[in-house]
Amino acid sequence: MNTAPFPVRTLWPNPDGHSVNVIDQTALPHVFRIARLTTLEEAAYAIRSMQVRGAPLIGVTAAYGLALALRQQSGGDTLENASALLEATRPTAVNLHWALARMRARLLPLPANRRADAAWEEAGRIAEEDVEQCRRIGEYGLALLEPIAGRKSGRLEIMTHCNAGGLAALNHGTAIAPVYAAFRAGIDVHVWVSETRPRNQGLLTAWELRQHGVPNTFIADNAAGLLLSRGQVDAVIVGADRVAANGDVANKIGTCLKALAAREAGVPFFVAAPRSTFDFSRAAGADIPIEERSGDELRLLHGLDEKDAGKMAGKAVRQLPSCQAVFNPAFDITLARLVTAFITERGACAATAESLLSLYPEERNA
Amino acid sequence: MNTAPFPVRTLWPNPDGHSVNVIDQTALPHVFRIARLTTLEEAAYAIRSMQVRGAPLIGVTAAYGLALALRQQSGGDTLENASALLEATRPTAVNLHWALARMRARLLPLPANRRADAAWEEAGRIAEEDVEQCRRIGEYGLALLEPIAGRKSGRLEIMTHCNAGGLAALNHGTAIAPVYAAFRAGIDVHVWVSETRPRNQGLLTAWELRQHGVPNTFIADNAAGLLLSRGQVDAVIVGADRVAANGDVANKIGTCLKALAAREAGVPFFVAAPRSTFDFSRAAGADIPIEERSGDELRLLHGLDEKDAGKMAGKAVRQLPSCQAVFNPAFDITLARLVTAFITERGACAATAESLLSLYPEERNA
Repeated sequence: MNTAPFPVRTLWPNPDGHSVNVIDQTALPHVFRIARLTTLEEAAYAIRSMQVRGAPLIGVTAAYGLALALRQQSGGDTLENASALLEATRPTAVNLHWALARMRARLLPLPANRRADAAWEEAGRIAEEDVEQCRRIGEYGLALLEPIAGRKSGRLEIMTHCNAGGLAALNHGTAIAPVYAAFRAGIDVHVWVSETRPRNQGLLTAWELRQHGVPNTFIADNAAGLLLSRGQVDAVIVGADRVAANGDVANKIGTCLKALAAREAGVPFFVAAPRSTFDFSRAAGADIPIEERSGDELRLLHGLDEKDAGKMAGKAVRQLPSCQAVFNPAFDITLARLVTAFITERGACAATAESLLSLYPEERNA
Repeated sequence: MNTAPFPVRTLWPNPDGHSVNVIDQTALPHVFRIARLTTLEEAAYAIRSMQVRGAPLIGVTAAYGLALALRQQSGGDTLENASALLEATRPTAVNLHWALARMRARLLPLPANRRADAAWEEAGRIAEEDVEQCRRIGEYGLALLEPIAGRKSGRLEIMTHCNAGGLAALNHGTAIAPVYAAFRAGIDVHVWVSETRPRNQGLLTAWELRQHGVPNTFIADNAAGLLLSRGQVDAVIVGADRVAANGDVANKIGTCLKALAAREAGVPFFVAAPRSTFDFSRAAGADIPIEERSGDELRLLHGLDEKDAGKMAGKAVRQLPSCQAVFNPAFDITLARLVTAFITERGACAATAESLLSLYPEERNA
């Protein structure tokens, strides 16, 4: 991301080899704040509280969380206990599980006294791979967008949901990587950014698009149907938290409504995700656990106190009493038949089990 | 509405014959405040600022606004000028236009010195008719819900959008009238109340359901697709701001997303509205003007300051800078083919031009 004068990535290990810095995304877009993670518990808290969020970034943070745990105590049951603790932080994004499984596979054969250094290195490799995978997703996505842009006069209109931009990964992002690639390629691109209640991650997307100078317009989630039906959107691109073997997609709550409206309008609906988001062990979307979060995410609203704007500190106001019943699922399932194509680091493919296995043939016998 | 110890209606004329009281819905649900309207300008402001909202209530308020104008000045061009001013307050809800046209038809033949009293009486008649029409919508809606409730064990699950309850009309409401009727009939009913960004009228619906003791759960608008796909909703009922001759429905932004998700899930999607909401002069939804409101409705969030809860005064916090581009349409169009049935004061009917004309045969030659 072009966050200059800010650091270029959402997470980076410190030279001390014993701590990791992350952009604290609970403070964005109002305050740019760095959180320093020095322990397993701080890493778990960062994931659970959504200081870091976005499936790829959660995976990388969990990997470093394991490394931090092993720095504290490399012997005994640390590897398994720390892995279990991190695994329980958030249930839906499979990148978390994937990163921890990869870390365990790498570390378990090693003697305890070599695990901490190896964990640090392996987490770094996962981070570097994320950067490269997202870059490729951007390139493959651009190849899908170029003909759409070529067929029309006027700007290319992209709609997205939640934040699957640079902030959701290490830097390029997943769903927004093709937008950045198109912008760099000189395509006149504009993004409809949906608020994404209740956590309002649309604020993050609007913020990072502003940093890059990419034209964008903020909308209520409710406005997606009108825009699509009026022909004001050329493509919808979202990320994913977990994709089942049949191509069903678990992604931020509200995604399936946009997919339905896109189908109704005949607009392509793309899902951008790296290998670590595909869970070939789950046959279909119904097998994916859906996280439920606190009702306070709806009872309270967060923003800046304008009377106190100089302090630039967030403030919560209450819109619902604590007695009001609230149901707050964090994800929904978009059926594979609503997905026009996946955009992965290995290229684009149709949302079918066979197409996914063609892209990842090593999973056929897994 | 059972708003005891509050007044029973959302609007009532004062005994002085020169002013009207309304519940100020911009203060709800945090503060119960009455606004006294004494002039045309105050009535127009009440509609524009959404102190009163909901298609039927807007119509009644406009009628009284005309009566207030004629109390101030009954001669000259007052009738036409005041009517034009009120007509311009909000473009989508046709009840406004309908009520003003009815008032003009009643008043124009009268000499100026009799218009004010006649206007006051006619506005009162419109108000009483609203109460009776909404009561009937409740009964006809109950007749649709009873067999659905009878076919299942466990509670009847209704989803709604925005507020088309007692607060949107004089008392019973439109979409929620059948819920109140079911609740009074002893049916175990529960309502999924969607937040309805950006104005969050779901707060009004949750508030009035709490006043009545009707079980309800608040959700983000984004959660509607998940609930419907999981079979957790037996029927969706919404109101309408304007229905075209072919049955296309203009209603609060986000409605068409719920209609698409209901169709996908095989769940009936009902639209409850009185005669004054049907605009036989518009052939289809594409002919209905869509109001765009200020982007500040998304840039700012409103709630109670908990540190200052004793004062019970609303407070705004900022989530987006004023430089952020925002698109804020207030309504969308749900195509007739997504509507299972209309629920009107004359009974239920299919969403087709012919069915609507069968219900309102006097419109065939209009």
